[in-house]
Amino acid sequence: MNDLKTRILGLVNEDLVDIEAELEHHLNPHLDLVREVAGHILFSGGKRLRPLLLVLAARMCNYRGDYDKTFSISLEYLHAATLLHDDLIDEAELRRGLPVAHSIWGNATTILVGDFLLARALTIAAGTGNIEIIKVVAGITENMSQGEIHQLSRKGDLSLSETEYREVIWRKTAVLFEGACRSAALLADASAERIEALSTYGANLGLAFQMADDLIDYTSDTKALGKKAGADLREGKLTLPVIAALQTAGDQDRERMATIIRNPSFTIDDFETLKQLLERHGGLAYTRDKARQHVQIAKDALLPFEPSVTTGILNDLADFTLQRRA
Amino acid sequence: MNDLKTRILGLVNEDLVDIEAELEHHLNPHLDLVREVAGHILFSGGKRLRPLLLVLAARMCNYRGDYDKTFSISLEYLHAATLLHDDLIDEAELRRGLPVAHSIWGNATTILVGDFLLARALTIAAGTGNIEIIKVVAGITENMSQGEIHQLSRKGDLSLSETEYREVIWRKTAVLFEGACRSAALLADASAERIEALSTYGANLGLAFQMADDLIDYTSDTKALGKKAGADLREGKLTLPVIAALQTAGDQDRERMATIIRNPSFTIDDFETLKQLLERHGGLAYTRDKARQHVQIAKDALLPFEPSVTTGILNDLADFTLQRRA
Repeated sequence: MNDLKTRILGLVNEDLVDIEAELEHHLNPHLDLVREVAGHILFSGGKRLRPLLLVLAARMCNYRGDYDKTFSISLEYLHAATLLHDDLIDEAELRRGLPVAHSIWGNATTILVGDFLLARALTIAAGTGNIEIIKVVAGITENMSQGEIHQLSRKGDLSLSETEYREVIWRKTAVLFEGACRSAALLADASAERIEALSTYGANLGLAFQMADDLIDYTSDTKALGKKAGADLREGKLTLPVIAALQTAGDQDRERMATIIRNPSFTIDDFETLKQLLERHGGLAYTRDKARQHVQIAKDALLPFEPSVTTGILNDLADFTLQRRA
Repeated sequence: MNDLKTRILGLVNEDLVDIEAELEHHLNPHLDLVREVAGHILFSGGKRLRPLLLVLAARMCNYRGDYDKTFSISLEYLHAATLLHDDLIDEAELRRGLPVAHSIWGNATTILVGDFLLARALTIAAGTGNIEIIKVVAGITENMSQGEIHQLSRKGDLSLSETEYREVIWRKTAVLFEGACRSAALLADASAERIEALSTYGANLGLAFQMADDLIDYTSDTKALGKKAGADLREGKLTLPVIAALQTAGDQDRERMATIIRNPSFTIDDFETLKQLLERHGGLAYTRDKARQHVQIAKDALLPFEPSVTTGILNDLADFTLQRRA
C-alpha cells in the first residue's frame, strides 16, 4: 500500500466504519435471497469511494445534520445495482476476484436484485426530504443507463472519437461522482458557488478515475485487477488509450492494431503486441496526461474553500486516482 | 368489445388521449435507440390502466393542480420497465402479439432501457415536489422486484400455499395499483381517510386483476392473449387456479396434475387435461370467487365518497376486471 493511500485511509477510517454499518443496516429486504445476492456485491471489498466522497463534500459545506452517512449509502446501492447489471451485460466472470453474481444466482435474480437496489437507493435519497437531491439521484441512473447503452451500441467500432468516448464516460462514471458531491452540497444547504465548485471537483475526479481505470486495463495484470486483463478489449470497448494510439499511428501500425481489436479471441501475445503499439504511439501517455489534467481541474475547484483536513483528503483522493494499480 | 368496456372508454377517452401525449412528451432520452426500445414496449397497445387509475383517484379527491397527468405516466414507465425485465426473465416470446424487446435488441440493451425507465419514473415522481409520493413510487419498485424474486425462487414448487401466492401477487401487482391511488390522493392533499379508502380500492383492484390474469391463462387462447396460452405453467409459475385445485383434488388427480406441471415440455393435450382437472376440482371457480371478493372490497371502499361520474368509472373498472378475456 503506498503512502498516499495509507494517509487517506488513516484520515477517513471512522467514516468508512460508519458507512459500512449503514450499508448493512438499511438494506432491509423482505427476502433472505435478496440480502444474499445484494450482500455478495456490496460486501466484497468495494472502496466506498462514492459514499465517502459524499460525506466529505458535506463536511466541506459544514453540514450539521445527521443524515449524511445514511444518505451516502444511496450512491453505493446505486453503484452496486449498476455493477450487477453491467457484469451480466458484459458477460464478466470475475469482480474483485470473486465469481460475478449472475454466475452464482442466474440472470433473472441478478437483474431483479439490481432493480431492488436501484429502488432502495431512491428510497434512501427520499429520506433527505429534499426534492432537488432526489432529482440528482434519479438523474444519475438515467445517465448511467444511457452511457452504458451508448458504449454498447458502439461496441467494436474503430471510428469511435475521443469526444464520443468522453460523453460515454461522463455519463457512465463521472455523473455519479458529480452527483455525490452535488447532492452533499444540497444536503448541507450550501451556496450556489459551493455547489458548483464541488460538482466540478466530482465530475473531473470521475473523468480522471475512469480514464485511469481504462489505462489500468492495459497496464495491470489479472491478479492485481481481480478480473481478467484486457477485458475492455475482449468486450469490444474502445477506450482512450486505443482511440489516441489509433489517431497517431501510421497506416501500417493502425492496421496491426485494428486486426487485433477486431478479433474477439485474440491471444496473450496479440494483447502484448497491442500494448507495445499503444505505448509506441503514445496512447498510454496521452490518456495519463488527460487524466492528470482532470485531476488538476478537480483540485483547482477546491481553491475557494478554506484549507482544512477535509480539503486535504479531497486533494489526496484526486492525486490517488493517478496512482491506482487496480 | 363488451358494453362495460365501451362505457368506460367513452368516459375516459379524453384522459387517455392526454396520458398518451404525456407518455410521448416526457420520455426524453439522449439516444434514439432508447426511444426506439422504450417506444416498442410503451406504444404497443397498453391499456394505460395504472395512469388512468391515478388520474381518476386524483379526481375523486378534487385535485385542482395540473400535474396529475404528467405524474400518472411515472407509473406507466415503471410498469414498462418491469415488463422489459420480466419478459427477459421469463424468456417470453410475445407481448401483446409482438416479439418481446430482448428478442429484437438483445438482453443488454433491454436491461438498460428498463433501468432508464425506472429512473425516469422516479424523476417524474420527483416533479410532484412531494417526498411522500416519491417514497410510494420507490417502494413500489422495491416490492415489485422482490415479488418477482419470490415467485422465481418458488418456481415449480407444488407446495406453494395460497398465502404465499397472495404475498407474491400483492407485491408484484397490487402494490402498483395501490400506489397509483395512494399517490394520487397524496398529490391532491386528501384526508387520511380518503388516502386509505383509495389505497384499499387500488390494492383490491390489483389483487382481483392479477387473479383474473392468472385465470385467463387457463381460459383464453393464444390469439386473444397476444402471448402463448399456458405460459404461466410453462414458466413453472403456480397460480391460484392450480393451487386451489391441488388442494381439493384426491390423490389420483393430484398426481395427474403434478405430473403435467412437473413436465416443462407438456403437450397441448396435457394442457387440456390439466384445464379439465382445474375445472373439476374447482380451481377456476375458486379463483373467480376470490377475485370477485376483492372486487367487492374495492367497490365498498368507495362508499364514503359522494357518487359522481368518477366513482361510477372506478366501480365499472372493478367490475370489468372480472370480464377481461385477455
